[in-house]
Amino acid sequence: MKALLFDYDERLKLKTDYPEPQLALGEAIIKVSRAGICNTDLEITRGYLDFHGVLGHEFVGVVQEVSTSSEKDWLGKRVVGDINAACYRCETCLSGRHTHCPNRTTLGIFGRDGAFAEYLRLPVANLFVVADSIPDEMAVFTEPLAAACQILYQLHVRPTDKVAVIGDGKLGLLVAQVLRLSGADLTVLGRHSEKGQIVARQGVRYIKPEEGKDIREQVGGECDLVVECTGNEVGLAMAKALVRPRGTIVLKSTYHGTPAVPMSLYVVDEITLLGSRCGPFDAALRLMERKLVDLNSMVSFEFPLIEGMRAFEHAFGHSSLKVLLNI
Amino acid sequence: MKALLFDYDERLKLKTDYPEPQLALGEAIIKVSRAGICNTDLEITRGYLDFHGVLGHEFVGVVQEVSTSSEKDWLGKRVVGDINAACYRCETCLSGRHTHCPNRTTLGIFGRDGAFAEYLRLPVANLFVVADSIPDEMAVFTEPLAAACQILYQLHVRPTDKVAVIGDGKLGLLVAQVLRLSGADLTVLGRHSEKGQIVARQGVRYIKPEEGKDIREQVGGECDLVVECTGNEVGLAMAKALVRPRGTIVLKSTYHGTPAVPMSLYVVDEITLLGSRCGPFDAALRLMERKLVDLNSMVSFEFPLIEGMRAFEHAFGHSSLKVLLNI
Repeated sequence: MKALLFDYDERLKLKTDYPEPQLALGEAIIKVSRAGICNTDLEITRGYLDFHGVLGHEFVGVVQEVSTSSEKDWLGKRVVGDINAACYRCETCLSGRHTHCPNRTTLGIFGRDGAFAEYLRLPVANLFVVADSIPDEMAVFTEPLAAACQILYQLHVRPTDKVAVIGDGKLGLLVAQVLRLSGADLTVLGRHSEKGQIVARQGVRYIKPEEGKDIREQVGGECDLVVECTGNEVGLAMAKALVRPRGTIVLKSTYHGTPAVPMSLYVVDEITLLGSRCGPFDAALRLMERKLVDLNSMVSFEFPLIEGMRAFEHAFGHSSLKVLLNI
Repeated sequence: MKALLFDYDERLKLKTDYPEPQLALGEAIIKVSRAGICNTDLEITRGYLDFHGVLGHEFVGVVQEVSTSSEKDWLGKRVVGDINAACYRCETCLSGRHTHCPNRTTLGIFGRDGAFAEYLRLPVANLFVVADSIPDEMAVFTEPLAAACQILYQLHVRPTDKVAVIGDGKLGLLVAQVLRLSGADLTVLGRHSEKGQIVARQGVRYIKPEEGKDIREQVGGECDLVVECTGNEVGLAMAKALVRPRGTIVLKSTYHGTPAVPMSLYVVDEITLLGSRCGPFDAALRLMERKLVDLNSMVSFEFPLIEGMRAFEHAFGHSSLKVLLNI
């Protein structure tokens, strides 16, 4: 089959003769319809997580094959899928934290080939049926939208909170779109006015911070909650400058290396730093079905899988938002 | 009056002719009976916070003078006092976070002479009457015990939680004594067996971690909550190694400089890092009145104020716990 992989020679390659995935007990083979390129995919091509194999974890597709007759109702269903394949037997899984299963594999990220291919395999337990009203090019956003929803799973965001989102990349804009639904007083801080327009149109305050000016003044006061979506030290320092004493900073991006963090300031001001990763697919699908998020504006380009190399070039561009692969 | 101060020439000095504090509106003059030396005092003599003046913020004393007749019931009362003198007018104060008031002064730490002197002044609003059943040498622990109680103010600690406290210094032992009351499965990790005995006697597991051995195995599994009381990078790394995915690390100590923190691990494992500082005096006094904490074992030395320089030398010793000043 055709597949886009990050190979053991540390190169991104499009292969046309990659072996199809083999069905395993409890799993399904899914024919991928569309897939989305995420920053994590870009990072992997720079060596992040030392993953080699088929890339991609954002997808929508159709169930082609299942392993037992009790699962045959899934055949032909249009699905998205939780990317963490857990063991459901260990203490972590049995405590309800299966996305943290120490035995997990992760689609296109760790120990399991991903979605930039004609077919993928995932446990049936990971699948969610997509309602007919959600087109493929929206459904493909389920995974990153779920990651944005994870903030609301972890935290109580009040409609009276003052909230800032730092970063106007793909994740920052999705986080902002989810947090705006809380009714909170929301500001997005970014660098790209054209990206900011997507949320500005939705009634979210968007600013490009001016250097040398007090950041709190620019946002109109200190924030109860700041979501850091840049993954760099400058973004984290800005988050600290914005958050009020006893406020919360959610860390939504991974960081290069080990950033230097002035921890004493966090102690003295009693700040909560909260790491946040994968989220609830069902909630994300409900938001899409209710048309509460604008995903169309977030697609910059779409390429057929055969042009996957070109798709990656575009995904690396700073002005790009989501680049989709039509499989 | 006699006072122990960190002077502008960056030296610790005992003066016998230091001016007595002047009464201000809404404040009380307190004759100090006993005071305790805290690590923050030691840090200040190394330049921390750039404070100069009378040191000390842990004290018990007797109200000597008040500024209005409506406050005269305070005269002669034995009291302890919240160290943060807030404005009670700003947004932070009016939101119930007066210990974070941006206009605050802090006893012996910022903008206000401290307790290592015959007299100090504090707002009447900061004072708490000490019950007769609590002797001076226990009451002097109210401030650090309140700081330990702050964890329970910020977090829900369940009696079923697995909890570790890293550090067997003064603060670590107080934190352990407070957390043991929750019924949680508690381990203290330290370096000084003789200090560890104080909590081991109270039914708390105490271990000296062995290098090269898996830290989780030594503690008997991963922890829901870890309280980091060392203020160094090694302690923080140990806390990360011990905490479970979606668990919480409370930062109870300030750190030198800006430690390098592998933030991505905190994001991937969705860890909560929670800064924690000053706490509720009333709760600390109730724990002492109910004799639920052993403070006597935590006093290593007691010196008269006039021997304050010697007291500091002893406080700097690694094997010392609390060093008290008898004023």
